[in-house]
Amino acid sequence: MTVKCLLLAIVMISISCSELIGRTQSISAVTSIDRLILMPMPASIKLQSGRLPITSSFNVATKGYVDDRLRTGLGRMIRRLAGRTVLTLTYDHTADESAATLVVQCERPGEAIPSINEDESYHLEISDKQARLTAPTVVGALRGIETVLQLVQGDRDGHYLPAVSIQDQPRFRWRGLLIDVGRHFEPVEVLKRNLDAMAAVKLNVFHWHLTEDQGFRVESKKFPKLHSMGSDGLYYTQDQIRDVIAYARERGIRVMPEFDIPGHSTSWLVGHPELGSAPGPYTIERRPGIFEPALDPTREDLYKFLDTFLGEMAALFPDAYMHIGGDENEGKQWDRNSDIQAFMKKKGIKDHHALQAYFNQRLLKILQKHGKKMIGWDEILQPDLPKDVVIHSWRGTKALAEAAKKGYDGILSNGYYIDLIFPASQHYVPDPVPADSDLTAEEAKHVLGGEATMWGEWVSPETIDSRIWPRTAAIAERLWSRRDITDINDMYRRLAIISIQLEELGLTHKKNQDMMLRRLVSSDNIAPLKTLVSVIEPVKEYHRYEMRPQTMLSPLTGVIDATTPDSDTARRFSSMVRDFVADAPRYQLYRAELIQMLTDWQTSGTELDPVIDRSPALKEIKPLAQNLATLGETGLEAVTYLKLGTPPSKEWRDASLAKLEQATKPYAALEFVVISGVKQLVIAASELK
Amino acid sequence: MTVKCLLLAIVMISISCSELIGRTQSISAVTSIDRLILMPMPASIKLQSGRLPITSSFNVATKGYVDDRLRTGLGRMIRRLAGRTVLTLTYDHTADESAATLVVQCERPGEAIPSINEDESYHLEISDKQARLTAPTVVGALRGIETVLQLVQGDRDGHYLPAVSIQDQPRFRWRGLLIDVGRHFEPVEVLKRNLDAMAAVKLNVFHWHLTEDQGFRVESKKFPKLHSMGSDGLYYTQDQIRDVIAYARERGIRVMPEFDIPGHSTSWLVGHPELGSAPGPYTIERRPGIFEPALDPTREDLYKFLDTFLGEMAALFPDAYMHIGGDENEGKQWDRNSDIQAFMKKKGIKDHHALQAYFNQRLLKILQKHGKKMIGWDEILQPDLPKDVVIHSWRGTKALAEAAKKGYDGILSNGYYIDLIFPASQHYVPDPVPADSDLTAEEAKHVLGGEATMWGEWVSPETIDSRIWPRTAAIAERLWSRRDITDINDMYRRLAIISIQLEELGLTHKKNQDMMLRRLVSSDNIAPLKTLVSVIEPVKEYHRYEMRPQTMLSPLTGVIDATTPDSDTARRFSSMVRDFVADAPRYQLYRAELIQMLTDWQTSGTELDPVIDRSPALKEIKPLAQNLATLGETGLEAVTYLKLGTPPSKEWRDASLAKLEQATKPYAALEFVVISGVKQLVIAASELK
Repeated sequence: MTVKCLLLAIVMISISCSELIGRTQSISAVTSIDRLILMPMPASIKLQSGRLPITSSFNVATKGYVDDRLRTGLGRMIRRLAGRTVLTLTYDHTADESAATLVVQCERPGEAIPSINEDESYHLEISDKQARLTAPTVVGALRGIETVLQLVQGDRDGHYLPAVSIQDQPRFRWRGLLIDVGRHFEPVEVLKRNLDAMAAVKLNVFHWHLTEDQGFRVESKKFPKLHSMGSDGLYYTQDQIRDVIAYARERGIRVMPEFDIPGHSTSWLVGHPELGSAPGPYTIERRPGIFEPALDPTREDLYKFLDTFLGEMAALFPDAYMHIGGDENEGKQWDRNSDIQAFMKKKGIKDHHALQAYFNQRLLKILQKHGKKMIGWDEILQPDLPKDVVIHSWRGTKALAEAAKKGYDGILSNGYYIDLIFPASQHYVPDPVPADSDLTAEEAKHVLGGEATMWGEWVSPETIDSRIWPRTAAIAERLWSRRDITDINDMYRRLAIISIQLEELGLTHKKNQDMMLRRLVSSDNIAPLKTLVSVIEPVKEYHRYEMRPQTMLSPLTGVIDATTPDSDTARRFSSMVRDFVADAPRYQLYRAELIQMLTDWQTSGTELDPVIDRSPALKEIKPLAQNLATLGETGLEAVTYLKLGTPPSKEWRDASLAKLEQATKPYAALEFVVISGVKQLVIAASELK
Repeated sequence: MTVKCLLLAIVMISISCSELIGRTQSISAVTSIDRLILMPMPASIKLQSGRLPITSSFNVATKGYVDDRLRTGLGRMIRRLAGRTVLTLTYDHTADESAATLVVQCERPGEAIPSINEDESYHLEISDKQARLTAPTVVGALRGIETVLQLVQGDRDGHYLPAVSIQDQPRFRWRGLLIDVGRHFEPVEVLKRNLDAMAAVKLNVFHWHLTEDQGFRVESKKFPKLHSMGSDGLYYTQDQIRDVIAYARERGIRVMPEFDIPGHSTSWLVGHPELGSAPGPYTIERRPGIFEPALDPTREDLYKFLDTFLGEMAALFPDAYMHIGGDENEGKQWDRNSDIQAFMKKKGIKDHHALQAYFNQRLLKILQKHGKKMIGWDEILQPDLPKDVVIHSWRGTKALAEAAKKGYDGILSNGYYIDLIFPASQHYVPDPVPADSDLTAEEAKHVLGGEATMWGEWVSPETIDSRIWPRTAAIAERLWSRRDITDINDMYRRLAIISIQLEELGLTHKKNQDMMLRRLVSSDNIAPLKTLVSVIEPVKEYHRYEMRPQTMLSPLTGVIDATTPDSDTARRFSSMVRDFVADAPRYQLYRAELIQMLTDWQTSGTELDPVIDRSPALKEIKPLAQNLATLGETGLEAVTYLKLGTPPSKEWRDASLAKLEQATKPYAALEFVVISGVKQLVIAASELK
């Protein structure tokens, strides 16, 4: 799903920062809760007085139902807790509840295979004597363990858990992350660390997008030409698949595979051209985009093939759902194939949408035979679609609501396309069932939740973490927490710390940036480049490819790949400028910080010149370095006028605004995200009397 | 081998920086060759005029013998070359030699199983038209590929390879890295990235230290209690072992396993107490040190057991050698066991050394039966040891030379104990056959090479790379390059860039530090802590445990773990101080840089105060933060006196020296490595007239 029209929907969402009314009602001390770093926010939280110290005698007792999943989950908790506190902690569990720091009590294991019916609720009571985590299921306990880890704090007196009472359960049952491994392959270790991160923010569905025009990534023992010819050797063995599924299950995460058909199927056809709607031969697609190859739905052989293949996959993947994609098939191969046209005429199938509906009906029967529920993208919602098919909506909440009214279950991904490089604040807003929804309570139950989608055109094992995290934590909160948790500043306050905590799971979203910058300049002295990178972002939506074409075989090691979405520096700069300008006529607030920042831009922009001359891979950002110096210089001039209270000339104003206008032009598919702040300074200076 | 007495040998080696006489003889332009970053330095290198541009049309032709190992090696080269240049390069090889940028020509595959007899030589000719890499074997070509990658440079006109003629082959046939996975387990991915790094600096033996008191890390299907009871579940399956061996072979690296017996064997005895010399029961050892448990060499059952077990391992590990450890058995269990004493009396075995010699003789027969050559630590060299046993020397070159004179092959590790936290400069000096060696040429052939040893007491998957790299690259150069390549400054100049190149292989030696600091302070603002960490190092040798006791289950996430050996900042500071003081009476050279650095120490030391108050895990470094401020302040005062030419009072001098003396005291097993430089400033100021 990489369709551009969905952008309009996303871009047009107005970011409404409603106040956090609900959150402050149920708590005793607002100032204290503001120190807590919980994400997603629990359903109910009451802060008590007191604290439970965490010392080297911290230990755990288990009561009630205990199994290996709980034990290993507690082992991971101890390792992370020890890692953060640098305390030597015991990995043994005590049987003596009274002597334990943390008592964990479950009633039952939860679903044998992670499922949408899982009870994920938990209750956490922390006093100055003991912490007690109770949950109906082990999965609930695992969710609670993550909350415990987020509650850990420290001060002069040591580490502690604040005394608190938390009752928590998710708002939506389906909270997913799609990772597209078709366009760029991601090794098992990348998936595992992302599963750990998902568990840390209480996501519960890993949607494994396994096949694409650019790669077929799963071993088929029935049809080995699929992976051997369609993957450049980059695929998961069935042992690896089972390993990932087991790893996810340990964390209470479902693994739903997607086999995207009838379009997006070039890689299938490399080894099996006979399944295609044109004679072939086919080669693995190397470009991004929408391509013509599609399975031929008029051939009985195809259904036999799919029955065998999907039967094999149904046995490999225990999840109740199987995603069949179904998106972005424009039917061009079908239109040009006279046999297919004849078939349509004969069967009274009026267009390629109807032909795809026919295909889906056949597919549905195969999936049902193998005990799977079918799920597909919006396009599969055609007349006569049985009600037990789930709609995955890239179109938006309206499409989702319409499907719900018709009785279809659905999940939302519109608004959660993290590959579009929008800031977390923007992904934080869309709600699967927004406040103004006209769905009845019964209809709303059909909205199961949502999924962030990490489409794989421009991510490598080195960069994918930085494209998923930390922004996906904000989406995880939207899907778990109450609808009225919408304070964007508070979200960012918590996100900064959660992002650091995610690093303890091996995520590379923060640490790989400096590494990539060092490679670009062949030196440890990355300071000026880092300054530039802190105030630019990749162009949004799908403009990267137009501006800086690459193939799937190109290295993702350029400045654009080292640059992350959602610049913290830009956000801080905007906020400081706002306060500085509002501090008229003194213009004192944040003045020193602004001068320091702007000076850094000016000098870094200049210092980058010789660096770029030594580093051919930086040539493409030369104009950005010059503009960085210009932004710094212009900003400094404006601050000086404001500080002195001297109005600048109209010429200066016009020249400055022209410079800023010129600096908005992207280079190397990168754009500045601090220009509006500088502009605000220039305009404020120009308005001096 | 973690014996403290070896330290004397290391510490007492005088660091002789003989000039790089040989290197500059064979080259045309000294200034140009100084821009090359090759490590290890090739045997012969001639710089020509001209350059071969690297553009997106870079391509490879293969001639002569070609196999999958060469093809995948070239694929990895293209990926790294593309990564650095950010160019989209083809992964296809051309058959047309005339149109290729790089022609690779081999004669034969090399040894089927990587072996000590491998021909690793290669010849590289680069002109402004083409690069040509010729090698007798694929392994030689793989070595040459690494040289090609190190030669890549860039400037305003783009990336290029300098025109050069290189003829290269190793000085020693055995160039190894030991990784101890017994004390702390290292997952397969850690081993793989370190194998990649080994290949990058032309090391060719991975010595896999698989068993220790603290863990038995290899799956035995014959005796599953060994790994299931002796490893906490942290062991390699036989499939994983085969995978690692195949991965190493792809890179021309031997994998030699070590099963350390009869001592260091507690973990064996957890599941098999009947093999021990005391009744047991045994539990996995959690402390570092030398422990009493030892196999009982008087029991026939033991040899039956070892025959079966080592037979299983001999089939699993194809390498010709098997390392049996044999070190640090103090015979205490044997002394106390009356059956063993009776056995010795009966057989006329006079002491535990002789008993171990008896054990080794029996062991040797088992290894021979399974087609393996035996290698063990110095201790195994007892009278009557057959000449085909190899001595692994932790004692030093003298012991090695004596063994060689007796006709034993040997390898050196004394001087290469990278776990001792000495700087690269120190490991760079010891030579397996030093210039003053009295060995004949024939005897010297018995010295096969050497191995860096990464003992595992205080390394985790997060920190191990930073303990191995980049220092091991200096050892790799000692073992590959000519004896007269000994310029330490030049080594460091090259090491800095090689260290960055190692990152492209996924090594975390640089990037994990900031991550660990962020975890310690729960914040992105790590600047003051980073300043402190840049001028302190872990205490050397084996003092860490005395000063800061931990167990094998303790987290390795403290400041000491984030701190690296061989501080670049300290080296730069020393060098600047030297030049500044020599610049009397102007005291101008590097004055600004010194003032900036010292000011940073002073302010960071102060800024750390509130950070430490918020971060309980930093409490242990509070005195270090205070001393950092003191060092900065004292240094600044001295620079001010020197700048003004005003002699300070004797009181200032005495007080300052007292402060410096006080700052030498380690805290949290960390010590400053910049004190001598500050002292030099204080003394220079005091000597002003």
